[in-house]
Amino acid sequence: MDVFQILKEKTPLIDEAVFKLLPSKHKIPEIQKFYDMLRDYPSRGGKRLRPVLVLLSTAMFGGKEKDAVITAAALELFHDWILIHDDIEDSSLERRGKPCLHRKYNTELAINAGDELHNLMWHALIEQKNLDILKAFSELLSFMTAGQAMEIDWFTNNKWHMTENDYYEMTSRKTAWYTGSYPIYFGAILASKPEYKEKILDFGKDFGIAFQIQDDILDLTADPEKFGKSVAGDIFEGKRTLMIIHLLSKMNPEEKQKFFSIMNKSRADKTQEEVDYVLSLMKKYKSIDYAKAKAFQFAKSASEKFDRYFADIPDSNAKLAIRSLIDFVVNREM
Amino acid sequence: MDVFQILKEKTPLIDEAVFKLLPSKHKIPEIQKFYDMLRDYPSRGGKRLRPVLVLLSTAMFGGKEKDAVITAAALELFHDWILIHDDIEDSSLERRGKPCLHRKYNTELAINAGDELHNLMWHALIEQKNLDILKAFSELLSFMTAGQAMEIDWFTNNKWHMTENDYYEMTSRKTAWYTGSYPIYFGAILASKPEYKEKILDFGKDFGIAFQIQDDILDLTADPEKFGKSVAGDIFEGKRTLMIIHLLSKMNPEEKQKFFSIMNKSRADKTQEEVDYVLSLMKKYKSIDYAKAKAFQFAKSASEKFDRYFADIPDSNAKLAIRSLIDFVVNREM
Repeated sequence: MDVFQILKEKTPLIDEAVFKLLPSKHKIPEIQKFYDMLRDYPSRGGKRLRPVLVLLSTAMFGGKEKDAVITAAALELFHDWILIHDDIEDSSLERRGKPCLHRKYNTELAINAGDELHNLMWHALIEQKNLDILKAFSELLSFMTAGQAMEIDWFTNNKWHMTENDYYEMTSRKTAWYTGSYPIYFGAILASKPEYKEKILDFGKDFGIAFQIQDDILDLTADPEKFGKSVAGDIFEGKRTLMIIHLLSKMNPEEKQKFFSIMNKSRADKTQEEVDYVLSLMKKYKSIDYAKAKAFQFAKSASEKFDRYFADIPDSNAKLAIRSLIDFVVNREM
Repeated sequence: MDVFQILKEKTPLIDEAVFKLLPSKHKIPEIQKFYDMLRDYPSRGGKRLRPVLVLLSTAMFGGKEKDAVITAAALELFHDWILIHDDIEDSSLERRGKPCLHRKYNTELAINAGDELHNLMWHALIEQKNLDILKAFSELLSFMTAGQAMEIDWFTNNKWHMTENDYYEMTSRKTAWYTGSYPIYFGAILASKPEYKEKILDFGKDFGIAFQIQDDILDLTADPEKFGKSVAGDIFEGKRTLMIIHLLSKMNPEEKQKFFSIMNKSRADKTQEEVDYVLSLMKKYKSIDYAKAKAFQFAKSASEKFDRYFADIPDSNAKLAIRSLIDFVVNREM
């Protein structure tokens, strides 16, 4: 099944709903600029992976795709406001191939625009009047902010104690439930099959962890034109990726000392040479290979769980598409 | 009627509900720290003016105070997360007598903590299952972020074109509806009297503008111990207050030039001497007297509207208390 084709086909449906949720014109110039900011990230494209998963999941569990469009669009707004705030928190430079919102405007305006997009997400969901969906969004967001708190605390306070399990704990909260579990759980709610929650969360966690590890690998290896971000941005930002955690267990004391002295610098203070040194360590210890193997392992586990947990759900194009997305996440180049 | 006594009496009821909405213990140290951050601003006290208005308004319109506690607590969380993000956007130093959250921890962690408090506000309201309250919160927040966008755009981009009407436009959106109109509107919804919306918004706008002008006057004149913020912080931050707008129309060209060169500096680059110069201009042109007169004018208009619009609402302690709060906002010292 051609996953790119599926994502591409569903995008116009989602985008139409997204832009209907965003205000466009105002006579006060400062508010017009604010509205332009709200439409900025949504206008930059992106894979629309999560909203498409909501549509597919709704269909897979026997619901109607059209009943899932608002939830899918709200999840895209979720993605946009989280990215705006994350980009500030991570001192990121580029997003979807262009300067991050806080660099295009400024940090103060970008925090505020993120807050309003967050509100517009809720606004869309409130208008839809489905309290179970509202509750599930809130539950997900609490997991995410706690995961984000872990990650920020690590890199802003130069913490290096974390184990591979700490990494999975953080990534489950920050990304996996958001990317894998909840989009599919939203579909189950919309199709009146909320009883699949525990199975979906468990399957989706493995799916989401595989996605995140692959995302971190792409940060180091991808064609920046395709990926839309600067190469090795994660090392500049000091992100504790699986490759970095792997290195921690492998480096000799001398390497470790140099590694810490580099990684504890702020983004602006790191040089390309220093980042290249960290990359050379990853090459020496085969950290990327290690991470790739782990991503495949999680994807394999996700596939097995999918087949086992959802054996009683009738076959459909939607079910087949979600099944194909599992392989896609570890084979993708964007 | 002793307004301080009313605020003091209702505070424990509100605080109990607020802290029940906040998580407290977690075994992961980074998440424990995150939870501590969520409880930080709520623990610092504050007037609880807005949540108390919700309780009083509910009672005034014939509802039960106990049915308003969750909405009141959610509005206090609203205040807390907005303050966390505002303090970052305004480069503020102190809040309620202590360092701002982004200075006590760091900006990255504080943005994220604000996002979760924002979510917990929605969480409380979703659990309450009152869709009209949910809609009203969302509507209010859209006004506020647009007002905040105006204000931030002015001071981060050194804009000085604004008129007194622009100021009222910005302040209505950013503060007046939030402080005056919506807390009272929430009470009307909870008491099943939503038909008073337009009257409440119109009365509350004058009430809220009076409150904000007085707040800006206190920034310049208050005892910092009572007020909980540093003196003349607004001038350091470059805020376009009514006193500043008044100055713009009064200064001679030479003063104007010096004024702009000072005000266009960032907070960190301004010296106390420079801020004192701006204060001396305000003294020369009686800008604070001008603002005081305007605050009284708005408060008077609010009083008249209150008496006219709500003449058919039976007299009660709650009604009398709200009436007293109108005078309080322009006579307060904190």
